[in-house]
Amino acid sequence: MDARTIGTTSLVRQLGDWRSAGRGAGYRQLADALRLMILDGRAPLGARLPGERELAAGLGVSRTTITTAYAALRDEGYLASRQGSGSITRTPGVQSARPQGEGALGPDVIDLAVAAVPAGDSVHRAYRRALEMLPAHLGAHGYEPVGLGVLREAIAGHYARRGCPTRPEQIMVTHGAVHGFALLLKLLTGPGDRVVIDHPTYPHTIDAIQQAACRPVPVGLQEDGWDVEALEAAIRQTAPRLAFLIADFHNPTGLCMDEATRRRVAELAARTRTTIVVDETLAELWLDAPAPPSLAAYDQAGRVIALGSTGKTFWGGLRVGWIRADAEVIEALTRVRPTIDLGTPVLEQLASAVLLSDGEGDIEARRARLRDQRRTLEGLVVHRFPDWRVNRPAGGLSLWAELPEAISARLAAAADAHGVRIAAGPRFGVDGAFARFVRLPFALPEAELEKGMMRLAQAWQAARSTRSGAAGWRPASALEEVY
Amino acid sequence: MDARTIGTTSLVRQLGDWRSAGRGAGYRQLADALRLMILDGRAPLGARLPGERELAAGLGVSRTTITTAYAALRDEGYLASRQGSGSITRTPGVQSARPQGEGALGPDVIDLAVAAVPAGDSVHRAYRRALEMLPAHLGAHGYEPVGLGVLREAIAGHYARRGCPTRPEQIMVTHGAVHGFALLLKLLTGPGDRVVIDHPTYPHTIDAIQQAACRPVPVGLQEDGWDVEALEAAIRQTAPRLAFLIADFHNPTGLCMDEATRRRVAELAARTRTTIVVDETLAELWLDAPAPPSLAAYDQAGRVIALGSTGKTFWGGLRVGWIRADAEVIEALTRVRPTIDLGTPVLEQLASAVLLSDGEGDIEARRARLRDQRRTLEGLVVHRFPDWRVNRPAGGLSLWAELPEAISARLAAAADAHGVRIAAGPRFGVDGAFARFVRLPFALPEAELEKGMMRLAQAWQAARSTRSGAAGWRPASALEEVY
Repeated sequence: MDARTIGTTSLVRQLGDWRSAGRGAGYRQLADALRLMILDGRAPLGARLPGERELAAGLGVSRTTITTAYAALRDEGYLASRQGSGSITRTPGVQSARPQGEGALGPDVIDLAVAAVPAGDSVHRAYRRALEMLPAHLGAHGYEPVGLGVLREAIAGHYARRGCPTRPEQIMVTHGAVHGFALLLKLLTGPGDRVVIDHPTYPHTIDAIQQAACRPVPVGLQEDGWDVEALEAAIRQTAPRLAFLIADFHNPTGLCMDEATRRRVAELAARTRTTIVVDETLAELWLDAPAPPSLAAYDQAGRVIALGSTGKTFWGGLRVGWIRADAEVIEALTRVRPTIDLGTPVLEQLASAVLLSDGEGDIEARRARLRDQRRTLEGLVVHRFPDWRVNRPAGGLSLWAELPEAISARLAAAADAHGVRIAAGPRFGVDGAFARFVRLPFALPEAELEKGMMRLAQAWQAARSTRSGAAGWRPASALEEVY
Repeated sequence: MDARTIGTTSLVRQLGDWRSAGRGAGYRQLADALRLMILDGRAPLGARLPGERELAAGLGVSRTTITTAYAALRDEGYLASRQGSGSITRTPGVQSARPQGEGALGPDVIDLAVAAVPAGDSVHRAYRRALEMLPAHLGAHGYEPVGLGVLREAIAGHYARRGCPTRPEQIMVTHGAVHGFALLLKLLTGPGDRVVIDHPTYPHTIDAIQQAACRPVPVGLQEDGWDVEALEAAIRQTAPRLAFLIADFHNPTGLCMDEATRRRVAELAARTRTTIVVDETLAELWLDAPAPPSLAAYDQAGRVIALGSTGKTFWGGLRVGWIRADAEVIEALTRVRPTIDLGTPVLEQLASAVLLSDGEGDIEARRARLRDQRRTLEGLVVHRFPDWRVNRPAGGLSLWAELPEAISARLAAAADAHGVRIAAGPRFGVDGAFARFVRLPFALPEAELEKGMMRLAQAWQAARSTRSGAAGWRPASALEEVY
């Protein structure tokens, strides 16, 4: 029941120069190298490693070395063994998939891997009102694959307020922006198609593109924003099926695309007949000034499809998002959708309609809190990590910090051992890029941020000293003792 | 932005002998043939037809014939034209995707295309209780990709009561059974893989398999149930990646797999190392006697994965289902899931946990109502359609009726014109099979069933007389006038 297999040749190539004299037993070094690959995301999770015999031959080491390395990784939670299916990569923590609400992280771990905030008061209130509206819907069968009219209208109104006139027929309600993107990939792409992405970008976007058997084409972001010439060159050179941009308080960098650039990007999409999917899930979380109108507002050619969500604005536990596109695209999506799911729950839709109409007060309170937390986190980074570089993001939920060395995966692993979880830069890129970066969300309360940064400072010491040579390295069976 | 293209050669082959002398203008006959292909599901929806010039050449007719046929189909709502993208297949009604709750069918259309029932009292009650439980969860970020502990435990308990001991770690909460199957296809299959299916089976299953670029391998059901020899032969001959069975009140036939067959199927799965996905969404809707324990209860080898849902048992507007599998498979699914969506809404999960614990009274009331409606519908079919053949299903929501002629797509189109919507047999099969069958749900109240069957009888007369020759055919621009 394995999903993917990592070939021996590919693994040997990726491991590269894993062995160095004087750094301990071969099996230990191999286990360390494999663990880093898994933590970095260079080895996909849930994938099968080569058999022991083949890998021994491929690396030119004894089979015992492989057996012992695999056993060590199993002990540490980085491999699962399945009867008859070999050794499958995993992580001890199920990092991003781990339910915080259930206390699965343990009582004292500070989770900076997830950039999301608790619900405000308006969420419970919205559900209460939705429950009053529900009886009118209980007499029908409840399947609503394109979305309830009342919510599609509320979303259309939300776009109109953002300077982008929209009809309800242009909206499909989804389970969130990720789900919207999955539907668009199904409808618009086929295996081998290229999809241009910002680089860095949101990790699930890269995963979704790869799972759809498409190829991500990264276009690097500049320190001050989007490079439209580079975007145009990538489009011309690779003829992508789609481009996926996060124009509003980009995740992870916090950048916001200015009006002139929006105009140029929309014009580029029209001229090159390229569909651009723009993720606007963070648009409402502006901290200094509102974002310009939706990128879709600059689009005369029907080439821009926008994704939105209530997850970051109101609460992640309310799983409602949407796609805004031409009515014909929405209609085509209703054909594709039943191969993935049969619609968004009715009550969630009613609650979202309430929030989109009356939730502004809650968002404003959330912005004020995030501004304070942003300032706190900036201060903590300056204080604890004087040699890290951060730019102030104009909105969103996180800082994108540049380290003086390319050891962010090592830092993330060390952080894990020190009771704080962070997302290392390579999760936001392809081919191991951004090893000098970490994303630091300011979504947690200030006391948590303080504790988190204190622990991260300890982890940073450990990660740096490990790197400095054999002295930092100890044979170990648990993560804590290695990094 | 088209998803799929129908090639000229393939379309010409499928159209076959579309033209017959004395039955009117060529463009009209071509339009009729194309419309039937679309209604039958032989032409996928949302697909691009060949350009006019190519199709004219392929069929050896004038370009005007094609242009006029396409224009007629556009008028009738079977084609959409998109600037620069050609002609895209659609249906006027967005049949299964149409929200009943919104009155989109018009006030007086009787919808027998959807086999689902309105919510019982317990649904509103469950949401109310869930809302009381919600505040404890609002302090967390709300992303629950594997599911809330309280619901996973309730689902495990539900299996235990069905004779199938289950740990919460074996459960992933989904947006419904279709979503569960989409996740399993992502995890376990790749392009070109074969997936064995019951034949007939649930339409969205076939669509999902084809969308995943896999190939459905149909194994015909016998009148009294599953043919394990045929299943074994199909497995041996095609080495499928998965088999998908509906063992409990199979949709559309209503068959229930007996214990001995369950034992043999589980043994076959173990012996051939084939993963079997069993859809049990209708298991609770037994009408004569409960189904035997879940197929998973007979599985010692970890080869059976079960799908369940609250949609048919409680309400389709409550979008919660689950996957039951080995804990390792569930863990692997948590890696794949974020490429499709980030989890099921918290409140929906809490309400489902309540329903699974206290909803039995509601289900029993639902069964009693369905028994009455089943009897009513059986009587109506005998009365209105003496030459149709139906077997009494032991559970589920519908009869599977065999017509004396293979004209079910024509009947469905005629029914549409008479204000009643039914699902024609070919929607439940591959390659145009089951043209002699229609699915007749008894999910609606008795007065609706009576009105629906009266209209269907009129449609049946129209469909038969149309078929008898040119006399029944009139040139027309609307569906009503054609069939």
